Order: sequence, then C-alpha cells, then structure tokens
Amino acid sequence: MPVTVVATMKAKPESVDTVREACKQAIEAVHSEPGCDLYSLHESDGTFVFVEQWADEAALQAHSTAPAVGTLFGTIGEHLDGGADIKVLKPVVAGDPAKGQLRP
Amino acid sequence: MPVTVVATMKAKPESVDTVREACKQAIEAVHSEPGCDLYSLHESDGTFVFVEQWADEAALQAHSTAPAVGTLFGTIGEHLDGGADIKVLKPVVAGDPAKGQLRP
Repeated sequence: MPVTVVATMKAKPESVDTVREACKQAIEAVHSEPGCDLYSLHESDGTFVFVEQWADEAALQAHSTAPAVGTLFGTIGEHLDGGADIKVLKPVVAGDPAKGQLRP
Repeated sequence: MPVTVVATMKAKPESVDTVREACKQAIEAVHSEPGCDLYSLHESDGTFVFVEQWADEAALQAHSTAPAVGTLFGTIGEHLDGGADIKVLKPVVAGDPAKGQLRP
C-alpha cells in the first residue's frame, strides 16, 4: 500500500530563497530513489510543503536515511523557523480514481 | 498557473469515522467541479489531510463557495478538534516532471 507524506516547514524571512534552492537540489536526487512515486514541493509566504508518495513503508524508510534528505536538513536546519512537521498518512480512496489519489 | 491546497483537520476521537465518511461523500461531488485536477484525502490517527490541485485561482474560488464544501463543513464542524488549517500554495517545479508535480 502506498504511503503519503506531507512535510511542512517555515523558512526564516531572510532564508526563503536559500531554503527553496536547497529543496530543489534535493528533489533532483530524491526522484531517483527507489519507490519514489511523487516528491513535489509547494510554497506560500515562506512556508514550504512537500507532498510525497512512496511505494511502501520500506521505500519511505530507505528515503529517510538516504543522503539527499540528510544533506537537505543539514543545509537548511539553521534557516528554518522551528522544526519540520512531517505527517505520514494513508490514502483514503474515494470518488474518481483519476482525481482522488496522488498517483494510481 | 495551477493552485495547490493542503487542508488539514483533526477529528475528535469519537468522530473519526463520521469525519471520514462525510469527507468521502464530499469527494464524490468535488471531483465533478470545474477545474478540479486533484482532490485526494489522506489519514493518520484521526488527522485528515486533503491535497488538492485546481486549474487556477478562479476554479479554487468557485470550489470554496460551491455546495459540497459548505455541506461538508456543516456536517463535520462539531466533530473537529479545532478548525481546519488550509494552506493555498504555488507549485515549485523541479526534477523529474513525472514525479515533481501533483498533476502535469
């Protein structure tokens, strides 16, 4: 069963561009990780939200200890206003399959 | 440009099933609204997260005043532990286009 992750973090006001660029670099690497179905970034007013789908729990576990995420948080940790809020969730399937799930 | 919405709400412990079922009913209707590219629900420990993509600001605006959402919040309002946190965001495009955005 796929696993959804929604990870939210707020950049310090002077660090919005730094955080965005570090995230974009991480995205390049994470897309090559096994079991990565979706790893997308969204932004508003210095808040960044990753929406992710992993093929299964094992893929998410491997991702969380892979170099890309370690490098990312090593780079941006001091540029964040507080910690990241990371939610690991299960899809609730309903409605039109084409619009009701992140990835089929 | 598409608009991303991440909407998070926490059900009262005794209301998790009620909230889930009301959300599933809303999903059916929302998928038929104009400009709805994605309207997906995810759950963990009584917390529900909608991840949405709308074709543009106008579509999101129409959605926010359409009957489905009004009915949903009318039904679940008393079953939530606090209010919904609704973030309206812009995609940050990077990496593999197939994995870096909710919908192309």
